[in-house]
Amino acid sequence: MSEPKSNDLLHKAAEWWSTEIIDMKPGSIRFRGFPIEQLIGRVSFPQMIWLMLKGDLPTPDQSALMEAALVAAVDHGPQAPSIAIGRMAVTCGLPLNGAMASAINVLDDVHGGAGEQCMELYADIARHMDAGVGREAAIEAGLDAFIPGHGKIIPGFGHRFHPVDPRSPRLLELVDAARERHVVSGRFADIGRGVEALMESRKGRRIPMNIDGATAVIYSELGFSPALGRGLFILSRSVGILAHAWEQSQQGGRIKGPMPPGIPYAYTGIAPRDFAG
Amino acid sequence: MSEPKSNDLLHKAAEWWSTEIIDMKPGSIRFRGFPIEQLIGRVSFPQMIWLMLKGDLPTPDQSALMEAALVAAVDHGPQAPSIAIGRMAVTCGLPLNGAMASAINVLDDVHGGAGEQCMELYADIARHMDAGVGREAAIEAGLDAFIPGHGKIIPGFGHRFHPVDPRSPRLLELVDAARERHVVSGRFADIGRGVEALMESRKGRRIPMNIDGATAVIYSELGFSPALGRGLFILSRSVGILAHAWEQSQQGGRIKGPMPPGIPYAYTGIAPRDFAG
Amino acid sequence: MSEPKSNDLLHKAAEWWSTEIIDMKPGSIRFRGFPIEQLIGRVSFPQMIWLMLKGDLPTPDQSALMEAALVAAVDHGPQAPSIAIGRMAVTCGLPLNGAMASAINVLDDVHGGAGEQCMELYADIARHMDAGVGREAAIEAGLDAFIPGHGKIIPGFGHRFHPVDPRSPRLLELVDAARERHVVSGRFADIGRGVEALMESRKGRRIPMNIDGATAVIYSELGFSPALGRGLFILSRSVGILAHAWEQSQQGGRIKGPMPPGIPYAYTGIAPRDFAG
Amino acid sequence: MSEPKSNDLLHKAAEWWSTEIIDMKPGSIRFRGFPIEQLIGRVSFPQMIWLMLKGDLPTPDQSALMEAALVAAVDHGPQAPSIAIGRMAVTCGLPLNGAMASAINVLDDVHGGAGEQCMELYADIARHMDAGVGREAAIEAGLDAFIPGHGKIIPGFGHRFHPVDPRSPRLLELVDAARERHVVSGRFADIGRGVEALMESRKGRRIPMNIDGATAVIYSELGFSPALGRGLFILSRSVGILAHAWEQSQQGGRIKGPMPPGIPYAYTGIAPRDFAG
Repeated sequence: MSEPKSNDLLHKAAEWWSTEIIDMKPGSIRFRGFPIEQLIGRVSFPQMIWLMLKGDLPTPDQSALMEAALVAAVDHGPQAPSIAIGRMAVTCGLPLNGAMASAINVLDDVHGGAGEQCMELYADIARHMDAGVGREAAIEAGLDAFIPGHGKIIPGFGHRFHPVDPRSPRLLELVDAARERHVVSGRFADIGRGVEALMESRKGRRIPMNIDGATAVIYSELGFSPALGRGLFILSRSVGILAHAWEQSQQGGRIKGPMPPGIPYAYTGIAPRDFAG
Repeated sequence: MSEPKSNDLLHKAAEWWSTEIIDMKPGSIRFRGFPIEQLIGRVSFPQMIWLMLKGDLPTPDQSALMEAALVAAVDHGPQAPSIAIGRMAVTCGLPLNGAMASAINVLDDVHGGAGEQCMELYADIARHMDAGVGREAAIEAGLDAFIPGHGKIIPGFGHRFHPVDPRSPRLLELVDAARERHVVSGRFADIGRGVEALMESRKGRRIPMNIDGATAVIYSELGFSPALGRGLFILSRSVGILAHAWEQSQQGGRIKGPMPPGIPYAYTGIAPRDFAG
Repeated sequence: MSEPKSNDLLHKAAEWWSTEIIDMKPGSIRFRGFPIEQLIGRVSFPQMIWLMLKGDLPTPDQSALMEAALVAAVDHGPQAPSIAIGRMAVTCGLPLNGAMASAINVLDDVHGGAGEQCMELYADIARHMDAGVGREAAIEAGLDAFIPGHGKIIPGFGHRFHPVDPRSPRLLELVDAARERHVVSGRFADIGRGVEALMESRKGRRIPMNIDGATAVIYSELGFSPALGRGLFILSRSVGILAHAWEQSQQGGRIKGPMPPGIPYAYTGIAPRDFAG
Repeated sequence: MSEPKSNDLLHKAAEWWSTEIIDMKPGSIRFRGFPIEQLIGRVSFPQMIWLMLKGDLPTPDQSALMEAALVAAVDHGPQAPSIAIGRMAVTCGLPLNGAMASAINVLDDVHGGAGEQCMELYADIARHMDAGVGREAAIEAGLDAFIPGHGKIIPGFGHRFHPVDPRSPRLLELVDAARERHVVSGRFADIGRGVEALMESRKGRRIPMNIDGATAVIYSELGFSPALGRGLFILSRSVGILAHAWEQSQQGGRIKGPMPPGIPYAYTGIAPRDFAG
């Protein structure tokens, strides 16, 4: 009686790779139900990103706000590890896909996760508010719960290089404008600013919201999960990685290390010794 | 006299990571000369991609045409190796950055390079035309020069799954419209269609232009280098990889192999034997 | 007065990449103090691994025990995600380094971290014993503390495919022999077997130690940190990944998806719809 | 009549992942026919590498020679791009698997392919000799055929840092000893030295064989394909990448760029300008 078993296995095989994102037949490709040929030329690339991630299309206003965040985060210079790795990779012989892979890989918890972690903090504060706690108390509770697991550096606030991150005020300005037009509720902008204010009152100095805190406001306002906050950041930063990898390939160079060969590294280990064998 | 030497080394160190893309000072970030706060909310994400890669801003029409190509290529289903790898990676414990890295890495010559190779073919034909050869003869010469190094599969034409790739006619329609409005010259659309026509006359059946051939037309019309054709494809397909990795993380699953565990693999090697030691 | 500043910066640059592992001068390379030319041909590859990771050379007996664990874990078949990814990557055009990178990347918490997590459990039990708790009580306390953070699947025990993992008894046999010869104390073998016994008494059926549990015993006996347990596993599994990637390259194939093209995937999303624009 | 079709598809699915390397049944794992429990503790890790890659076990002498090459290439300092990337990756939050993946990925044509390319050169010379050409003429013909495709840098010879690579003479000494004992024929040692001699006579100065040239001799003597030369190098260098990634994790550091933050990069692009919008 192998027939049912075979069919059953084939059914399981089909299920193994089930998806709600894309449906294909020979000559036909549909994303979230829409034929691709109706989308091409009629939806913007950010709208397509939204459709793929959330299952339906955003309004133009929603898309524009997300787009501002995507534009803001493309690059932070050739000495950021992700960008540097992309450039070094090219000089080792990798094509652009390989350079981007090695680079995107390092957008992990520390280098690419600040926005996601900040969204988790905001979401926790929002949950307190949903439970009836006032905003200021919710922020206090959220921050107090966050610190033990994350240390005193609150992701999304402060910057090693910029006294004030020039991207944040502009992004918040756009959030405020979107709130005016009822595109978003503004709840997470209030939460983000409240976190900033609370930290200032606690520490006696302002630790201004950085790009991660500001994009976390936007992605939270637009209903993205924290993990997708990281995902959207990766899509954005991929542009910078590609641009730098490409520029490096035009500059040339072979096996480019982190510093010019004339600058040595420091050896701090055990003194020379012979191997007794 | 170590001073000059030290300064010289520091100068070399600064030069080691030189770039024309981004200039930063504390509180200031400029891309290609433009302050980031002037770009956020005023340029689209595709315009920003263009600025990063080419050094200046596209017209809205140029950007829209590039955007159509970016929208078209986001995904080709969960059984494409890149997408499958992204999904498997998530079930191995990787966050989205890691899943995207392992997946983007495989967008190499065979799985991600068809558009780039097709652009090289088009560019070679264009070079013949620049040298005064007529279009049909140039196409013939270009194709004849291409085949020995690449085999009989011409990248950009034909599809294993789609008799006619539904994305190509729509993309070419947009190129034609852009040519009408003098956004592009239409030269590469002619070349692409000419390659298709020549192959049909040679083989006696139509091998229709696929998405790689059509996006190669667009990126060539817009003046991108072939290598950046691959780069733009990666930016596009990254969206699908992210969407599928995210969907897999919502579906759950641990250590997901390529087929359900009930389907075994075939062992075709040497028969059981004992190790004599 | 830039001189002191320049020298200081150069000093910092050298410190930035400081290491105790390798010292190089033109014509000279020393690892942990030993000249490379004295090591080549006189230390085994596993001894070299140990020297690089721990800073001094193992005895031949220590090395042999570690080596057994390295031999045991090289491969678990082409449908393990890591191996499958390595094979798929080759068919996408990647050379062996790229295939290995995409594959090794997924040896993360779920697919490559079981040994490390098991070592953490063993170490926690050992800490209880160091504090004076008897072994059985320490095992009970360790397991009870472990479960809340990790769920009911205890890494290192049980196997989806093998009723009894054929590698574990052999590895434990070697640990016992090493203990006889005072190469190791046997403490972690006792702990591992104790965990197995406790789970059996709790669940009423045996969940036998698998390869991760057995290699965790060995690496713990030999004084490796849990994170290095994962590292050693990666070195071992890299051999299988390389072998399979190489075999795939000999078999050929282009853009190999997870299942034969004839087996479709299941689309479970929204029904076809038109895009209103 | 779906039964035959289903069974056929299942058969194809099994074939899709066919391998000669590993055979598994519940409770049984065989590599190249040998039960794993017979191999553990009885074959060395290098012997296991050989078995996996070549299908049968090496003699101890063959294994020892391969092992010398594996020992020699583990590391070349923290400023090699592969090692630097592994270290940077750890400071971005990656676990060891991720750091190793990003790093191994860049062992591509330029940074990891010299040994493979050198083996191809040696193999081409050997083919000339097989066809009856004398060794010196074959070397001349091989080198002349190689240069047009690869440029004037002959992989395997010369070193940017070491006037004489201290690993090469020792490795060749071991090859000579193995030839004395009839472990290898010595043919590729002759070819390698002949290439060195020819280049010296052509250029008027010695460009001594480096580690890539010497390991290429060994792997060629032992019958490995050039691509596997790269594969074996990756296994070797993975040890150094792991050791450095681990050391970095012990040193700490967050988002470590290539140079200390105090050393800026050079911006060489377009002057500040306003965005007209």
